[in-house]
Amino acid sequence: MNPTACSLVDVTRLVRELDAFADARDWHRHHSPKNLAMALTGEVGELVELFQWQSEAESYDTARHPATARAVRDELADVLIYLVRLASVLEVDLDEAVRTKLVANARKYPAPQVPRP
Amino acid sequence: MNPTACSLVDVTRLVRELDAFADARDWHRHHSPKNLAMALTGEVGELVELFQWQSEAESYDTARHPATARAVRDELADVLIYLVRLASVLEVDLDEAVRTKLVANARKYPAPQVPRP
Amino acid sequence: MNPTACSLVDVTRLVRELDAFADARDWHRHHSPKNLAMALTGEVGELVELFQWQSEAESYDTARHPATARAVRDELADVLIYLVRLASVLEVDLDEAVRTKLVANARKYPAPQVPRP
Amino acid sequence: MNPTACSLVDVTRLVRELDAFADARDWHRHHSPKNLAMALTGEVGELVELFQWQSEAESYDTARHPATARAVRDELADVLIYLVRLASVLEVDLDEAVRTKLVANARKYPAPQVPRP
Repeated sequence: MNPTACSLVDVTRLVRELDAFADARDWHRHHSPKNLAMALTGEVGELVELFQWQSEAESYDTARHPATARAVRDELADVLIYLVRLASVLEVDLDEAVRTKLVANARKYPAPQVPRP
Repeated sequence: MNPTACSLVDVTRLVRELDAFADARDWHRHHSPKNLAMALTGEVGELVELFQWQSEAESYDTARHPATARAVRDELADVLIYLVRLASVLEVDLDEAVRTKLVANARKYPAPQVPRP
Repeated sequence: MNPTACSLVDVTRLVRELDAFADARDWHRHHSPKNLAMALTGEVGELVELFQWQSEAESYDTARHPATARAVRDELADVLIYLVRLASVLEVDLDEAVRTKLVANARKYPAPQVPRP
Repeated sequence: MNPTACSLVDVTRLVRELDAFADARDWHRHHSPKNLAMALTGEVGELVELFQWQSEAESYDTARHPATARAVRDELADVLIYLVRLASVLEVDLDEAVRTKLVANARKYPAPQVPRP
């Protein structure tokens, strides 16, 4: 793994869209990091509800099953939208944050050194 | 707003890194969508904990304050990592999902038509 | 504080109602602790949504405001129902658990010894 | 089911303990409903983390397995503590709320009328 070369995550254009969207609706004063963290929670709750009564095996079909295919895309999008908006309001670079975390994860969970066939 | 031109979100390289990371540790069988949705919940819980006793005004400084600057980046990264991993296992294109959702949001919350100075 | 005398929490009759309710609908196989923990998450998400755009000051009126009075009661009830059900399936005595936690909390956050007027 | 006779849930003494606890530490101003809803989220996140990599079958042993027996009790307690505290600050009667919700649930999910062996 070499997470230092080019960007792992590029959300620049989404950041700009969300900022313009909030601006046009005068939503900036509602979008404190505290409030956005709560909104993120709400969306994750809606996402989790899609999986709660499924078996693990069934859960792999959530995005293919007609009853949930659109819903799961919408909820994943909502979570990403609030996450990107929260990072943007906090002026956090998500690409840097993810890179740093992956390096820490690689140290915390070293891959087994056994040769793989 | 014109969310139809080029990609709003590009997580292609992160998807690949996470897949290689899980592969090297034989984690695929743990990474069912159901389990990943739960892991996402746990990380959002840790993120929210950083904001819970703050006022809204204080929450804007979370990424600047030495006591929380690294923690908030780590938790934002963890949420993004599990979200991208979940979408990847479900074979959902996050860019398409976000685009579709933004169009729906624009219809649901029309911007006021008054001219802005 | 003397949390050792009689019960702080009595949910015996609710446990019994929920068990009969699940039994009559053949829900036991769906009610694994893992699934109930997810259902709990979903309900907490719905509860949090009621507060997310409120100021702290406004949040005190949530149970009085006609638009949210019933909703907040319903969501609090849903969270409690899934929590009690989860503890019941795990055979955890919530009264014992709360007592032990309060003793630990009192040690972790000692009350200031200054005399209060 | 007859959820109208005596109380299904009695948390009166816990409400009083929590109020005294907050009072002794001058925590009332931190305990707005908005903040308590966030704290509840954080605790649910910690609870869910205990189950996230388990199979459904394994999850039934969480309160018996030495590695998780205390942790799951502590997290269940934390969720209950913040839930009861939140209801208390909102002046919501949890017993009434649960009763009303159970009646609604019985209407929403009628039990099958087939005789059971």
